[in-house]
Amino acid sequence: MKSEIIAVGSEMLTPYRQDTNSLDLTEKLNEIGVTVAFKTIVGDRQKDLVNAIRTALGRTDILIVMGGLGPTEDDLTREAMAEALSLKLRRDATQMAALHVRAATWRMPMAENNLKQADVMEGATVLPNPNGSAPGQWLDTLFEGYRKLIMLIPGPPSECKPLFEAECLPRLRAALPQRFIAKRTLKAAMIPESQADKLLAPIYTTYKDVETTILAHAGDIQLSLLCTKNSQEAAQQRVDELASRMEEALDDWLYSSEGDSLEQIVLYYLGLRQATLAVAESCTGGLVAQRITSVPGSSRSFLGGAVVYSNQLKIAFANVPPDLIAQHGAVSEEVAKALAAGIRQRTGATIGLGITGIAGPTGGTDAKPVGLVYIGVSDAQKTDVLEHTFRGPRARVREWAAQQALDLIRRRLM
Amino acid sequence: MKSEIIAVGSEMLTPYRQDTNSLDLTEKLNEIGVTVAFKTIVGDRQKDLVNAIRTALGRTDILIVMGGLGPTEDDLTREAMAEALSLKLRRDATQMAALHVRAATWRMPMAENNLKQADVMEGATVLPNPNGSAPGQWLDTLFEGYRKLIMLIPGPPSECKPLFEAECLPRLRAALPQRFIAKRTLKAAMIPESQADKLLAPIYTTYKDVETTILAHAGDIQLSLLCTKNSQEAAQQRVDELASRMEEALDDWLYSSEGDSLEQIVLYYLGLRQATLAVAESCTGGLVAQRITSVPGSSRSFLGGAVVYSNQLKIAFANVPPDLIAQHGAVSEEVAKALAAGIRQRTGATIGLGITGIAGPTGGTDAKPVGLVYIGVSDAQKTDVLEHTFRGPRARVREWAAQQALDLIRRRLM
Repeated sequence: MKSEIIAVGSEMLTPYRQDTNSLDLTEKLNEIGVTVAFKTIVGDRQKDLVNAIRTALGRTDILIVMGGLGPTEDDLTREAMAEALSLKLRRDATQMAALHVRAATWRMPMAENNLKQADVMEGATVLPNPNGSAPGQWLDTLFEGYRKLIMLIPGPPSECKPLFEAECLPRLRAALPQRFIAKRTLKAAMIPESQADKLLAPIYTTYKDVETTILAHAGDIQLSLLCTKNSQEAAQQRVDELASRMEEALDDWLYSSEGDSLEQIVLYYLGLRQATLAVAESCTGGLVAQRITSVPGSSRSFLGGAVVYSNQLKIAFANVPPDLIAQHGAVSEEVAKALAAGIRQRTGATIGLGITGIAGPTGGTDAKPVGLVYIGVSDAQKTDVLEHTFRGPRARVREWAAQQALDLIRRRLM
Repeated sequence: MKSEIIAVGSEMLTPYRQDTNSLDLTEKLNEIGVTVAFKTIVGDRQKDLVNAIRTALGRTDILIVMGGLGPTEDDLTREAMAEALSLKLRRDATQMAALHVRAATWRMPMAENNLKQADVMEGATVLPNPNGSAPGQWLDTLFEGYRKLIMLIPGPPSECKPLFEAECLPRLRAALPQRFIAKRTLKAAMIPESQADKLLAPIYTTYKDVETTILAHAGDIQLSLLCTKNSQEAAQQRVDELASRMEEALDDWLYSSEGDSLEQIVLYYLGLRQATLAVAESCTGGLVAQRITSVPGSSRSFLGGAVVYSNQLKIAFANVPPDLIAQHGAVSEEVAKALAAGIRQRTGATIGLGITGIAGPTGGTDAKPVGLVYIGVSDAQKTDVLEHTFRGPRARVREWAAQQALDLIRRRLM
């Protein structure tokens, strides 16, 4: 079944804001076997909205319109949908009462405009919205002789997602033939994209019944597999079979078969080995620490560390000998090594990480160009340093360096 | 003038990837007085693409189609546009030669499929693409009796943006009446959204000729003003006048009148005062340090600091007395104060920042709920602590706390 999502709101036609709700909705729709064939973004103009709705109903069977259900003059989705379908709006008594109760609870005056949120299309079912004032609407109707399933849902993400899951998905499931979906997400670190494609394309292209999506960002590759069949077992079997062939091909580039983030995996291995980690970051300036501590419960294995931006702090917090910096420069293999070993000794962590580099855009030389990064990993046995020159602007160099650092820790723990 | 942007690519109809090119294009279009009235995202199916193109040409005068110009079977934009306009495609000899040269340069075999990138619509101008193999196309034509300006541009951001700026914008400017645009971006920190709206709406609603866009995220509010007039002076004057009234209303919530980030402003004030900063972060885990070090040249004023996740590191790196933690708990006003003062003393920085809190989702108690954060700021004169309970999930608590911390430093420096 093909669907279209229309996101309503002039702000999404500015350079500053995007529709993001549709990503969640797409995921949920795909899971019940509904494809999203078009997405349209339209502003708060009734004429444009009617045009977008009629276009959508002319080319898809399921239409979800998000936004434009509030109380302001700009909120025109109800009016536009009624016009597009030549339906009347009736002001629903129950909804009016609910709006009055809500206003009283919040001790707000009840503006006349507010009541338009109680307008319901003929034949539509009101979808309760526990997180906001505007309810959604569900309509199972005919358009130019064809059956159409139409949903109006509020735009704010905190209202849109719960309402869609609680009210729309069950109705869609009931209206559509039953499908069974299996999904897997594999993740790999620091494998060059072209290499990943060369290894994986010959495999996944032979699984025409499994939809494979590959996403790459700053050294992180995510492979999403999705299969729809007439039984859960059949779908799961195909996905698992493809996943296991891809896992084999990815070898130790693979870090998760279940969609975990690299920082979660690092923390998982640290827990498994009853090991702790401390970091001394120069050019990444806290990026590695920030990623690790974004995971709830990270305090069990992550002690913390130092952001050693100045040479003085490299000496004070990570025991780097001043002579070493004078002799080799702050960005050097020797200093990366000393940072990793030093922060480990200072904190008593099982593993110490040290990062020093030139994030740019300035500060590079012929001998030490922008993007040059040294990453040291130290444990009781040894301290290794990896040297790499990352390309691109400052933010990209820092992201890649942080990803590479986390991957080195993972490999040390494996 | 109204325009529509069509982004072509099935990957943008998955839950994993979004069109982001259109944000840049929208900014450039707005600057020459062109509004984006619709955005459509469509997959790699010729029928759907023809439908989207015809719909767009029926409702707007300027159409930009991004993507689907490559050499693979899925690249169907040229074919779809030719079908929608009933135009023939001709294989352009110059483009074919260019493709052969490119293949030879990269020592790649020249696949037959590759040559479809040399297909040009009747009457179209080829737009050179120095960053990729597929050129763009420009067509000034009639559709159902109306003049339409049509652009085909490649999808990869590294090709799309430069080609649009170099080839499309000058042609659009020449085709449209000349307009002059003035822009300003104001930024404010930690002002409640409702408060901002109450202060500002009465002002900007009286400037109907200035388009005001308000964006809020985690304690950061951005106000973008844009005005189009027949002269640069007239446009600038209106924008400056509105900006200065808004600046007055925002008072010291305003931190930038030129669109700088809060971390840039903090670094600017640090430079101005010849002051240095060091941080001791617990619950934000490096987020403040990471934001500050994202700014090039931050090493001039930012010494670094410590991510003091464990109590042991609070003691070792920020001189927090162990008794203080035992008596008041790691999340307390006293420990925030000690962290701020301690990291300042340890590093010799002019200003020390200390953050401790409960980011969640677990670890809260009745007395110290999830979201409770203490932020200490210390200089030679005094050490102040702010206590606040931020609502929402872990990532949100951390983002708000980091923003609040940066704003406290700004206020101390002002």
